[in-house]
Amino acid sequence: MKPVHVGLLGMGTVGGGTYAVLSRNAEEISRRAGRPIAITVAADRNLERIRAMTNGRCRVTDDAFAVVNDPAVEVVVELIGGYTVARDLVLSAIENGKHVVTANKALLAVHGNEIFAAAQKRGVIVAFEAAVAGGIPIVKALREGLSANRIEWVAGIINGTTNFILSEMRDKGISFAEALAGAQRLGYAEADPTFDIEGIDAAHKITLLASIAFGIPVQFARAHVEGISKLDAVDIRYAEYLGYRIKLLGLARKREDGVELRVHPTLIPNKRLIANVEGAMNAVLVKGDAVDTTLYYGKGAGAEPTASAVIADLVDVARAAATDPDNRVPHLAFQPDRLHDVPVLPIDQAETAGYLRLRVADRPGALADVTRILADCAISIDALLQREPEEGEGAADIILLTHVCRERQTLDAIARMEALPAVYGKVTRLRLENLQ
Amino acid sequence: MKPVHVGLLGMGTVGGGTYAVLSRNAEEISRRAGRPIAITVAADRNLERIRAMTNGRCRVTDDAFAVVNDPAVEVVVELIGGYTVARDLVLSAIENGKHVVTANKALLAVHGNEIFAAAQKRGVIVAFEAAVAGGIPIVKALREGLSANRIEWVAGIINGTTNFILSEMRDKGISFAEALAGAQRLGYAEADPTFDIEGIDAAHKITLLASIAFGIPVQFARAHVEGISKLDAVDIRYAEYLGYRIKLLGLARKREDGVELRVHPTLIPNKRLIANVEGAMNAVLVKGDAVDTTLYYGKGAGAEPTASAVIADLVDVARAAATDPDNRVPHLAFQPDRLHDVPVLPIDQAETAGYLRLRVADRPGALADVTRILADCAISIDALLQREPEEGEGAADIILLTHVCRERQTLDAIARMEALPAVYGKVTRLRLENLQ
Repeated sequence: MKPVHVGLLGMGTVGGGTYAVLSRNAEEISRRAGRPIAITVAADRNLERIRAMTNGRCRVTDDAFAVVNDPAVEVVVELIGGYTVARDLVLSAIENGKHVVTANKALLAVHGNEIFAAAQKRGVIVAFEAAVAGGIPIVKALREGLSANRIEWVAGIINGTTNFILSEMRDKGISFAEALAGAQRLGYAEADPTFDIEGIDAAHKITLLASIAFGIPVQFARAHVEGISKLDAVDIRYAEYLGYRIKLLGLARKREDGVELRVHPTLIPNKRLIANVEGAMNAVLVKGDAVDTTLYYGKGAGAEPTASAVIADLVDVARAAATDPDNRVPHLAFQPDRLHDVPVLPIDQAETAGYLRLRVADRPGALADVTRILADCAISIDALLQREPEEGEGAADIILLTHVCRERQTLDAIARMEALPAVYGKVTRLRLENLQ
Repeated sequence: MKPVHVGLLGMGTVGGGTYAVLSRNAEEISRRAGRPIAITVAADRNLERIRAMTNGRCRVTDDAFAVVNDPAVEVVVELIGGYTVARDLVLSAIENGKHVVTANKALLAVHGNEIFAAAQKRGVIVAFEAAVAGGIPIVKALREGLSANRIEWVAGIINGTTNFILSEMRDKGISFAEALAGAQRLGYAEADPTFDIEGIDAAHKITLLASIAFGIPVQFARAHVEGISKLDAVDIRYAEYLGYRIKLLGLARKREDGVELRVHPTLIPNKRLIANVEGAMNAVLVKGDAVDTTLYYGKGAGAEPTASAVIADLVDVARAAATDPDNRVPHLAFQPDRLHDVPVLPIDQAETAGYLRLRVADRPGALADVTRILADCAISIDALLQREPEEGEGAADIILLTHVCRERQTLDAIARMEALPAVYGKVTRLRLENLQ
């Protein structure tokens, strides 16, 4: 059969990886797809780079808009990133009747509703497996593999940079700042690491996963986002002592009254497989009512793992392009006219178990005061650890694990504890998920 | 859109689960599929059972052949099992131009080439996600999610019964016989457990995974199959001491000269996520050249997890039925005219690391004789553990971990060791895979 003609936008890490894998595995891929996947034209601001890379085997240009307007191009692969030019390019490609494959989570988390609506109207596909968890085929698993299920929740370690930093903090007993510096030296963290360490990248991804899990529009602006930059190494140690690991978890949970959508450092029982995902690896845990929990694990970033997802999308597009749009897998897993406008709940309505660390005067009644406050706020204690004060310290750390309760109850209890004369300074609070 | 009309054959555990999930999640499923999935007729030998289950909401019959000949049926779901009647039913359904969804790994591992050829000829789909690893969408991941990759190997814990037994043996320090009896009491093992404990079920599954990973015909008869019934609890303890878990692993590896296809008890480093898959859970690890290793984990059996896979296939079939067969995902992942007839290698050409346990006289030179034999056979030693003999024993256990070598070298070395006067009885040998 005739080749699929692809226009590639952006020949950086992922673009270069995509080009390399498509070239190296051309035969294997066409044995599967039934036709070759051919890069017809590639665009990059750095013409020298793409000339060197493609070596005359495809046309090159530094004008990305020329590619989306090129009549020879059937599928545009957008690997430029960002919200602005990428949005214009993707919308232009759609307008021109071209299918789009993209790894751009930021773009889809922020402008996804507009982009998917445009694609739907024009009858083209926007495929985005590479936008979440790199090489792990989690979008396919959720949209197709688990289509029999009511999805109850999705929880993922979906940012490799932060997971690498957390692993280093735990393994080496170092601070966040030290671990970040190490990650930057090794290339696991960027010079400006904000998007990763503040949880924004993970929030983009869990926003997309929530939409395809529950059939709701993309609602990034309503996600609750906390990163790991304020995490204290001491809490990693206490969590370990109590049988937990701390991970930056993206979590989307369906409730009767809405959807919880949040990213924050989270204690997870170390018996769970996902708690043992270390280094820059990613993993996503999905709970469906029929299948129960399934886990998907692999490399969440990097040139070739991400290329693996981009190319899988290209093969899917090659197959689906010829079909009636009504028979394609819908962008957000559910038919566009049957998305539910379920609200994303504000964080103060979230329900989670918790971890509290407070510094308490070493005198009678201090612990009684603290536990009385929890009882008054209707919060049950699951575990309690009081460290013996070091000599001459006069104060002790108390660590409490609490049962599931509303965010508001926890904040109320913390405010009351901090008002106690026997409690010194701020109460450290982390969330805990059992993931069962 | 109009419903998809399904004929369901067999209303046992999986059939009942499929009916239950399709009923319970009807709205969620049709929101995804764009049309309802309707059970039009269900067949079971026990008419009372299906009447009670379906309660007048679909036609029932005790004649499965009436279903495959029913003009109203578009898709036949075969959940009867076995090689004989199931084969006739599936081939008849195909002949009648109906798509087939099946959970029957035995049927496909043994008669898959015939069945897929018939389906190809008639232009219908035979979908089999439920045949491997229950609710885990591993067939979809391999055939579609990883289509960019040259798959190097696939390794799976794909039989829940044996994994449950091995977990019990390790946790409780009990023998195989005790663990099997416990598994039977709890319903994790059947009254006649042969298919599970002797590795046959796992071999059916890894045979199918090998075909879709490498694009080769189904070759069950050439798989090497060893179960766990001869496994001694002492080896689980020694393996643990050396940092390994013993799992019944199905393994398919592509080599220059052919494919290794084998099922046997296997030592796996306990740092690997897959080594920590306990109880009746399943997990499959896939190594692709672009994506590196990815892992898929979940329930490998049970009514609703398996139903989850059956129904996902039904949704896929509902979508793909209207498309040109050339644009569908090929049954064995690769286009049928582009399967490679790569040979499955005989077990004596397998290459693995190994674990050897031998009982050696407590006298000078015994260990030197053993290690000399390994050197003569060009086998490198990776680790060695010699247990201090108990008082009055006069003999000690020696445990050796060896580097990767050919099966033949290992067997040769074992024969020579067993001929040594200082070695008592047989040498216990297990294979070891690093899975990296």
